[in-house]
Amino acid sequence: MSNTNNQILKNTNAQILDEFNASIMFDKELYAQDIKGSIAHSQMLCEQGVLTSDEQTAIETGLLQVKEEIESGNFEFTLATEDIHMAVESRLTEIIGEPGKKLHTARSRNDQVATDFRLYVQDKSVQLKNQLKQLVATFVDVASKHTTTLIPGMTHLQHAQPLNFGYHMLAYANMFKRDFERFESSYERNNYSPLGSAALAGTPHNIDRFSTCEKLGFSSPTNHAMDTVSDRDFALEILFNISTCMMHISRISEELILWSSYEFQFVRMSDEYATTSSIMPQKKNPDVPELLRGKTGRVYGNLISLLTVMKGLPLAYNKDTQEDKEGVFDSVKTAEISISILNEVIKTMIVNTDKMEDACKIGHLTATDLADFLVQKQNMAFRTAYYITKDVVAKANELGKDISELNIDEIRSANEELKDVSEEIVMYLDLRNSMNSRNSYGGTSSIQTENQIKYFEQWLEKN
Amino acid sequence: MSNTNNQILKNTNAQILDEFNASIMFDKELYAQDIKGSIAHSQMLCEQGVLTSDEQTAIETGLLQVKEEIESGNFEFTLATEDIHMAVESRLTEIIGEPGKKLHTARSRNDQVATDFRLYVQDKSVQLKNQLKQLVATFVDVASKHTTTLIPGMTHLQHAQPLNFGYHMLAYANMFKRDFERFESSYERNNYSPLGSAALAGTPHNIDRFSTCEKLGFSSPTNHAMDTVSDRDFALEILFNISTCMMHISRISEELILWSSYEFQFVRMSDEYATTSSIMPQKKNPDVPELLRGKTGRVYGNLISLLTVMKGLPLAYNKDTQEDKEGVFDSVKTAEISISILNEVIKTMIVNTDKMEDACKIGHLTATDLADFLVQKQNMAFRTAYYITKDVVAKANELGKDISELNIDEIRSANEELKDVSEEIVMYLDLRNSMNSRNSYGGTSSIQTENQIKYFEQWLEKN
Amino acid sequence: MSNTNNQILKNTNAQILDEFNASIMFDKELYAQDIKGSIAHSQMLCEQGVLTSDEQTAIETGLLQVKEEIESGNFEFTLATEDIHMAVESRLTEIIGEPGKKLHTARSRNDQVATDFRLYVQDKSVQLKNQLKQLVATFVDVASKHTTTLIPGMTHLQHAQPLNFGYHMLAYANMFKRDFERFESSYERNNYSPLGSAALAGTPHNIDRFSTCEKLGFSSPTNHAMDTVSDRDFALEILFNISTCMMHISRISEELILWSSYEFQFVRMSDEYATTSSIMPQKKNPDVPELLRGKTGRVYGNLISLLTVMKGLPLAYNKDTQEDKEGVFDSVKTAEISISILNEVIKTMIVNTDKMEDACKIGHLTATDLADFLVQKQNMAFRTAYYITKDVVAKANELGKDISELNIDEIRSANEELKDVSEEIVMYLDLRNSMNSRNSYGGTSSIQTENQIKYFEQWLEKN
Amino acid sequence: MSNTNNQILKNTNAQILDEFNASIMFDKELYAQDIKGSIAHSQMLCEQGVLTSDEQTAIETGLLQVKEEIESGNFEFTLATEDIHMAVESRLTEIIGEPGKKLHTARSRNDQVATDFRLYVQDKSVQLKNQLKQLVATFVDVASKHTTTLIPGMTHLQHAQPLNFGYHMLAYANMFKRDFERFESSYERNNYSPLGSAALAGTPHNIDRFSTCEKLGFSSPTNHAMDTVSDRDFALEILFNISTCMMHISRISEELILWSSYEFQFVRMSDEYATTSSIMPQKKNPDVPELLRGKTGRVYGNLISLLTVMKGLPLAYNKDTQEDKEGVFDSVKTAEISISILNEVIKTMIVNTDKMEDACKIGHLTATDLADFLVQKQNMAFRTAYYITKDVVAKANELGKDISELNIDEIRSANEELKDVSEEIVMYLDLRNSMNSRNSYGGTSSIQTENQIKYFEQWLEKN
Repeated sequence: MSNTNNQILKNTNAQILDEFNASIMFDKELYAQDIKGSIAHSQMLCEQGVLTSDEQTAIETGLLQVKEEIESGNFEFTLATEDIHMAVESRLTEIIGEPGKKLHTARSRNDQVATDFRLYVQDKSVQLKNQLKQLVATFVDVASKHTTTLIPGMTHLQHAQPLNFGYHMLAYANMFKRDFERFESSYERNNYSPLGSAALAGTPHNIDRFSTCEKLGFSSPTNHAMDTVSDRDFALEILFNISTCMMHISRISEELILWSSYEFQFVRMSDEYATTSSIMPQKKNPDVPELLRGKTGRVYGNLISLLTVMKGLPLAYNKDTQEDKEGVFDSVKTAEISISILNEVIKTMIVNTDKMEDACKIGHLTATDLADFLVQKQNMAFRTAYYITKDVVAKANELGKDISELNIDEIRSANEELKDVSEEIVMYLDLRNSMNSRNSYGGTSSIQTENQIKYFEQWLEKN
Repeated sequence: MSNTNNQILKNTNAQILDEFNASIMFDKELYAQDIKGSIAHSQMLCEQGVLTSDEQTAIETGLLQVKEEIESGNFEFTLATEDIHMAVESRLTEIIGEPGKKLHTARSRNDQVATDFRLYVQDKSVQLKNQLKQLVATFVDVASKHTTTLIPGMTHLQHAQPLNFGYHMLAYANMFKRDFERFESSYERNNYSPLGSAALAGTPHNIDRFSTCEKLGFSSPTNHAMDTVSDRDFALEILFNISTCMMHISRISEELILWSSYEFQFVRMSDEYATTSSIMPQKKNPDVPELLRGKTGRVYGNLISLLTVMKGLPLAYNKDTQEDKEGVFDSVKTAEISISILNEVIKTMIVNTDKMEDACKIGHLTATDLADFLVQKQNMAFRTAYYITKDVVAKANELGKDISELNIDEIRSANEELKDVSEEIVMYLDLRNSMNSRNSYGGTSSIQTENQIKYFEQWLEKN
Repeated sequence: MSNTNNQILKNTNAQILDEFNASIMFDKELYAQDIKGSIAHSQMLCEQGVLTSDEQTAIETGLLQVKEEIESGNFEFTLATEDIHMAVESRLTEIIGEPGKKLHTARSRNDQVATDFRLYVQDKSVQLKNQLKQLVATFVDVASKHTTTLIPGMTHLQHAQPLNFGYHMLAYANMFKRDFERFESSYERNNYSPLGSAALAGTPHNIDRFSTCEKLGFSSPTNHAMDTVSDRDFALEILFNISTCMMHISRISEELILWSSYEFQFVRMSDEYATTSSIMPQKKNPDVPELLRGKTGRVYGNLISLLTVMKGLPLAYNKDTQEDKEGVFDSVKTAEISISILNEVIKTMIVNTDKMEDACKIGHLTATDLADFLVQKQNMAFRTAYYITKDVVAKANELGKDISELNIDEIRSANEELKDVSEEIVMYLDLRNSMNSRNSYGGTSSIQTENQIKYFEQWLEKN
Repeated sequence: MSNTNNQILKNTNAQILDEFNASIMFDKELYAQDIKGSIAHSQMLCEQGVLTSDEQTAIETGLLQVKEEIESGNFEFTLATEDIHMAVESRLTEIIGEPGKKLHTARSRNDQVATDFRLYVQDKSVQLKNQLKQLVATFVDVASKHTTTLIPGMTHLQHAQPLNFGYHMLAYANMFKRDFERFESSYERNNYSPLGSAALAGTPHNIDRFSTCEKLGFSSPTNHAMDTVSDRDFALEILFNISTCMMHISRISEELILWSSYEFQFVRMSDEYATTSSIMPQKKNPDVPELLRGKTGRVYGNLISLLTVMKGLPLAYNKDTQEDKEGVFDSVKTAEISISILNEVIKTMIVNTDKMEDACKIGHLTATDLADFLVQKQNMAFRTAYYITKDVVAKANELGKDISELNIDEIRSANEELKDVSEEIVMYLDLRNSMNSRNSYGGTSSIQTENQIKYFEQWLEKN
């Protein structure tokens, strides 16, 4: 091979290698956190007498200019600067000269990246928590409009017992409340400042980690430098929290898809959240919930990715850890948009209460109530009650009705034992009454549902 | 096919199907929780007047007998009884007759299994938390013996800066403390009683969920029956907590494997935790840490399994959820035994302090300290200091020494600029001094390490 | 602590450690492969003059006795024997004395376990392949009965175009045929004999690996000892094949669950494969397909487990690899039982053709056909055709009909442009005609469906 | 809220929703495949008389222009065009007018996307296969230079037996050859043309799927439209193949990291593939192998993501499936760059043969050979041989030597039984002789290693 070719090959390899090594193309996401961290660091260095007041002012002003350049789109990110920390710092030095170089005193790339990334995760935890609160509010709001709307409660996707639709909505309010609590908890557990950990062992410089910690809004500095630069628990926690949250989203999405099928017709997506066909005006595809359900896959994948990366890594920093960010960014963005869109979908869906109530009349949902009535009010043995119930169901089938639609005469004629049964029995077969009878704490009765709504309203106010 | 063959085939199919459907072969693990839950339920039913005092007594005595039979190995579990709940209940009815059948009043298989499984997860969370506390204590104990033992701190598996070995041990104390906190947090977040949720909607019976909740040690009843029977967040949380914990275990395991290699020789496994060869008496395989590292795989797998199962399930109970338990049991057992064994491994390992300290003399670990000295004490420009440092390193290489081993004359001869340098420079090249100079909060100096030990001792006392 | 306590503690630790290290409790699954491998090895050693004919006979007879003991349940597996290889060998030596000890000549635990495990994976690949063939045959059989049964083809769970149900069944025949091919392919790719690789580097003994290879049914010996003892690709492949297969099973299961809901009622599970309620005689829960769907989780988990274990392991054998087997055993058993049960479910399901055909009349499924007719046969611009189609749909809605139910007068009255339209248009709105019109290769027409059935019948004969 | 605010909110929501739904920002990756597929489709439509020759020419020319615009960077991708198919088609219609609209005849978005994506996966399978072949060649090349270089073969990261380094390299050649075979196999198994499957059921148009199939280089059209539009097995296969390949890469990376540590020093990364520190000129971090090892995580994650997405999806097309591409693109790019870079790393690494050979002298690696010698040549009982071996090891330790370094007198003095032992024994203790003695098929002897190299050379020529 000629020397020229060799050189070209070398350059190509170098280019590939730069792409491979560099993180700038994704970690630029952290620019705001990086600049925030650097300002706090410079202020602390000034307090400690490492930087003069003029130097610190130059640095802070310079950093704010870099931030402004990035946000206005006037900053070109190139592979050459390798990562966001270097990109910011080299631009800073271009702007302000010598003092820029002093910013890195008593700091290492290792604690800098740990600080930036943790700030990001903490910021996003707060934001997702707030979005989840809004989502809970939306479910509670829909619930409050439907505390008397009947819907068949399902187990095994088979009609089981009549519920009210508000109650069904509150099941999701509970799930997303738990998700909220997980973000809250992981935020607290990880709210420690890595800054000042340096490469892996702390620094001989006279720094004040409590000062930077306070400036950055952490509750305390981490108390072990080596652990700090190799710890990614906080990133795993947000990935897990998001996975669980998206799992919940996949469940309501599955229900929305079922409910908007021709077979169910319980709800209709608002036109914005369903795609229509160019030929068939009546066709509406629930694309949005399908995509929400599908996006569960990617967040699970991101969780397993980072778990894999961290497995078996010796202390302290290893380059493998650079692989921690893209998955977190992707999961965070997925969660942000998914929660936001689900919120709109729920807000704008059209609830077809007639179809829901009609569906309750399939499957003799009050058969259990009938048997209970016979045992409790008529003192029958359960076995007898069971056979009589079977006869009533058979009678209803014969009449092409659901047992909840039978009148007293029809009931009485179903079995000899019922011929004098009290009219009260009709009430026990009634769907709405059945729903309201489940009045135990946490049950589906309208009263309990309203209590739960009140509970959530108080919770929303407090949080 | 003849009728006989058909019948045989049907029986075979029935047998396969029973195996497929039944959970008894794994959920028998929950016998204690099931019996505890049933006793609490019977007591509450008695309080509410649903059971007479005699009936309740019969039930409680009967259940305790079943428990005793199981624990003494005199209970035969068969596929016929399908699951632990039915196994216990049908044996109870054999023993005490009619009252046994009343136990199921106002309860469904759905809330019963949710209660049993949650009790299990809560019990195990407490136990694992306690084991982790012990493990932290062990690391702190080893640390306290090695606050002045030098070891090369690594980044990228390359010598970077001198640490003390106690400090290195405390990195793990921090990790396992965070694991402790996660178990503590998920315990609190999930400490709600499912009992009384019934099938999916509560019950018309006059039950008192607060009473059973108190008897079972939960902080409050769950407040939504439908959510409760379909929620498996608590199971996902323990799976995640264990995954993170095993990830940490895989990291110390990796280090132990490296450290006990011929190349490192930093530690020696005690004879119980390393396997010797039948031919080569000097060979000791670190089987135990290898297996600990390998077991990370199965707990990650169990986490992804349950996440997959839960994806896209409509409300409320679906049979898929039966797949929730085996993975949790397996992860819990893996964590129990792994933490316990790691604890012994760390306690009994022989620390080869000489080898650790010798290793610090490879790689000119104090080159940074030298450059810092020249900049700070001699007011050199960093660039000048850098070139002089290179010369000192070159000199050391020429003499076959590490720079930490150079005397003042050797240093002075390395570069013209150093010919009158103060003797103080020798101290800056000293390894132990370098370690102690990193005295910032969370740093590796012996003083900081001792502070951290004190912190942990207080934490251990409080928790 | 007293010495006695210390001793007890040591014993407890030893017991825990034995449990932790031993694999006997799961690798006993490999007894048949272990014995088969040992017999082949002894025969080869005899051929090579390492064992006398008498010694070999003693070994072979002894091994067959051990096998018989295991299969008749007269063999007690204890932790003391650590793994299946040692369990078999030590029992062999008990039975036949000295020659038993010679069996291990020129063999190491490393190649022995690799051989046993690979034999297992190969055996099971063949078996699963055969089960899949049966499953394909079942789908083809059902398909052949329903080539003219209409069913609404869905996209986004919305009615899209009319299909025949036989065609729908064949989609699954195609999936399981691909699964068959994957097992066939991985079987071929991994059909190499590990035996004779010894610890990691081959052996100085004069062995004949081609001889043992042939006796064990492999196509050739592996050609690199070190790779062989550390390779688990064959195990990963079967885990992946099973994961993909279970994913397909989860899809038909989802459909079966939907189809047996009150809302769909397209099929009814036979009584054996659905659970009835003790109270509601009409309720049938699709437990079996739900459990099939749920079991997808565990096989995904097993795949990710082994991938995790193998990540970053240096060569050659590491104890981590002991974690390779349980997941494979579990996935294999899950696949065996799942395929077998799905086969019965499909065979015995009751197809409700009326409900399927009725469902085709919801959603104006032939609207596209109408527009096509107007463009192609009436030379209308597409835009015009589109508006006219809308009018016909509106007319149908007004009459409470599906457009496929309109007669020629109703159609003609829908829009001025149609007032003289040919009667042929009625045919274009007909559902069955619409299905049959999709007659392109691989399309849904009854003719194409029958061609596909023929294709599968030939494939089944050949394989 | 005012109407204006409402409108703004709606617009914001619409914007978010567009981002959520659109795939254009990632599926533009498929532009070449999309255009290739469209050209083939237009040619077939022309052959079948659906398009005139002029129309077809206009379409083909137009499509090539679009391709040219994209490749030269003159094509603006916007969310408005939603996906690559619409982006290409709408630009085509801008350029050529009416005929552009006819291109979609007898084709649906569903079969179009299936075709594009499958073409991509097939193209990349071929490319990765070729890269793997190169990588195998590189390992073989390095091996051929080191067939007599000693290196300690490890089990449990402990020295076990002497190997030659060429042999060690060939272990990886075998792994990557198997990876090659998996890509080859999945390519063949999936080489079927989806085009013409239409939405889910084929088309009434008179198309010729065999014609487009041939033009696109597939071996046959798929034979079931509904299966085709919902099948993503081909995507799962490439994700699995890449996962296994990256697992292998993580293993050689781990070894490279270990080998370039101060403790091992077996190899040195060439300067391009290791990062130096700005202060410590002697420090070289193996960033590249670390990153290679870390990237295993993301490809495992992508595999589990798609497996999750596909779980439980009913037929046929669901929007969830849109989530299939990003993970595949990411895994493919990761594999491309990783294989390419690993290839350079291996090519350019500096092998420190002295250090490797020195390391063989630690651990008495020929102790087994000694015992074998005593048993085979001196007819000792194994137990006796074992104790004598222990004595020789003890003697060596006493002399501060490895047993391979003992001379005949030293050996004879180690134990009374050896006092007249033949000089031959020295050879049995010799490291190189030990390596060469493992001459069984697939063993480490230089002869076997050379045979394996020849095998690979032939394989490389054929493939």
